[in-house]
Amino acid sequence: MNFKLLIQYDGTDFHGWQVQENERTVQGELERVMALLEGRDVYVCGSGRTDAGVHAEGQVANIKLKKQFTPEKLRAAINGNLWRDLRILSVEKAADDFHARFSARSKTYLYRVVNTPVISPFWARYAHHETRPLDVNRMNDASRLFLGEHDWSAFCSAQSDSENKVRTITDFSVESHWDARAQALIIQFRVTGNGFLRYMVRSIAGTLLEVGRGEKDFDTIQTAIVGGNRYLAGATAPAHGLTLLKVYYE
Amino acid sequence: MNFKLLIQYDGTDFHGWQVQENERTVQGELERVMALLEGRDVYVCGSGRTDAGVHAEGQVANIKLKKQFTPEKLRAAINGNLWRDLRILSVEKAADDFHARFSARSKTYLYRVVNTPVISPFWARYAHHETRPLDVNRMNDASRLFLGEHDWSAFCSAQSDSENKVRTITDFSVESHWDARAQALIIQFRVTGNGFLRYMVRSIAGTLLEVGRGEKDFDTIQTAIVGGNRYLAGATAPAHGLTLLKVYYE
Repeated sequence: MNFKLLIQYDGTDFHGWQVQENERTVQGELERVMALLEGRDVYVCGSGRTDAGVHAEGQVANIKLKKQFTPEKLRAAINGNLWRDLRILSVEKAADDFHARFSARSKTYLYRVVNTPVISPFWARYAHHETRPLDVNRMNDASRLFLGEHDWSAFCSAQSDSENKVRTITDFSVESHWDARAQALIIQFRVTGNGFLRYMVRSIAGTLLEVGRGEKDFDTIQTAIVGGNRYLAGATAPAHGLTLLKVYYE
Repeated sequence: MNFKLLIQYDGTDFHGWQVQENERTVQGELERVMALLEGRDVYVCGSGRTDAGVHAEGQVANIKLKKQFTPEKLRAAINGNLWRDLRILSVEKAADDFHARFSARSKTYLYRVVNTPVISPFWARYAHHETRPLDVNRMNDASRLFLGEHDWSAFCSAQSDSENKVRTITDFSVESHWDARAQALIIQFRVTGNGFLRYMVRSIAGTLLEVGRGEKDFDTIQTAIVGGNRYLAGATAPAHGLTLLKVYYE
């Protein structure tokens, strides 16, 4: 039986999604628990990797099990063996050919920034702290430059192992709202696309932060997108501001 | 010079507000930093203690310093010596007779409950998890029983060292709202009063949770308030659901 899992994790204390020897990872934790429940090794197939420190409010994975479980029992059994920073929110039976990675059509990421002199302890783990004033409207305007199908060579890790760096960004907005707990504005970059290269969202976020501080102009961004020159892009923004919000299927 | 500090802390990794030998406490951390900055011991006077695990979005303290600081420099100097789970949001000069505890007129506490089968990792540190269905309207109705001036002997720690257990609750409401990160309803008990005994809010919250599950009737609560019999009150709700939201002065 093939099961689809909806997963949340606070990425602070994980070395990312992918299994690594001697490191605590999300996939590693889930495979440890599945081996306990199933009595054999089970591959936990995620929609994609997330880097160390990146959070997920809506990661999706699938697992193929031989033992019989109802979705509710399976969810309770997995969660009962996890620390509180990793949770299966829901489990559902999936078609045999459902594959969390290959069946994914698009993904939405959020990059959160708290723009204030002092960052609240309640956001310090989940948002990047920027003390210098940011021009949200200018960042939102600049976000439109990233829409469409492009080769993202300028906005990914030099170690990216994807040969094809063409991806399509379908939606991108930058908005801010007052947060009572932060007692500050939280700025959210929300980007949706059919796929993302390693560091791509953080590299775009870092570029937009430079736009927001008035340090980068639109022409430079346009040139970077067209020409693929990584030195024209901004610095990669820190991992802990990034959250995988949702994975879309069908 | 007397300074008023507005303080936030994630209480998870603190043994409460008050200084204790060999334990990490909020007051202890602040006094450690003040001794560094002032070159002598400085008493950090809080509006009141919070117990181990309790959070604060709006704790207030005052400190009397001999050295000259601008409020901004002082804030930066303190924050620069703290871990990220404790932050001074603002510093202002205060009148010489301002006393964070004696000058306080009232306080507002929030008690947060996530009412869902699985609690999100993003709320597990900050809200109590209740899987059984809770009747929010019934809890809100019951919250009115607690309004007014009463002897709260039934709703405080047996070890409470306050001789006078009379306090006045001026506002109390229970509301719920959908939270996108939790993917669940968050129920918030918001209570304001001129003072609170040890465990008082958590004891009232625990009683209301029993009301919400249909396990306690209004008459029993009324009898507990009037008669002061602790066995009629509910269990003390866990500390991590509680947050000191605001302290009011003047």
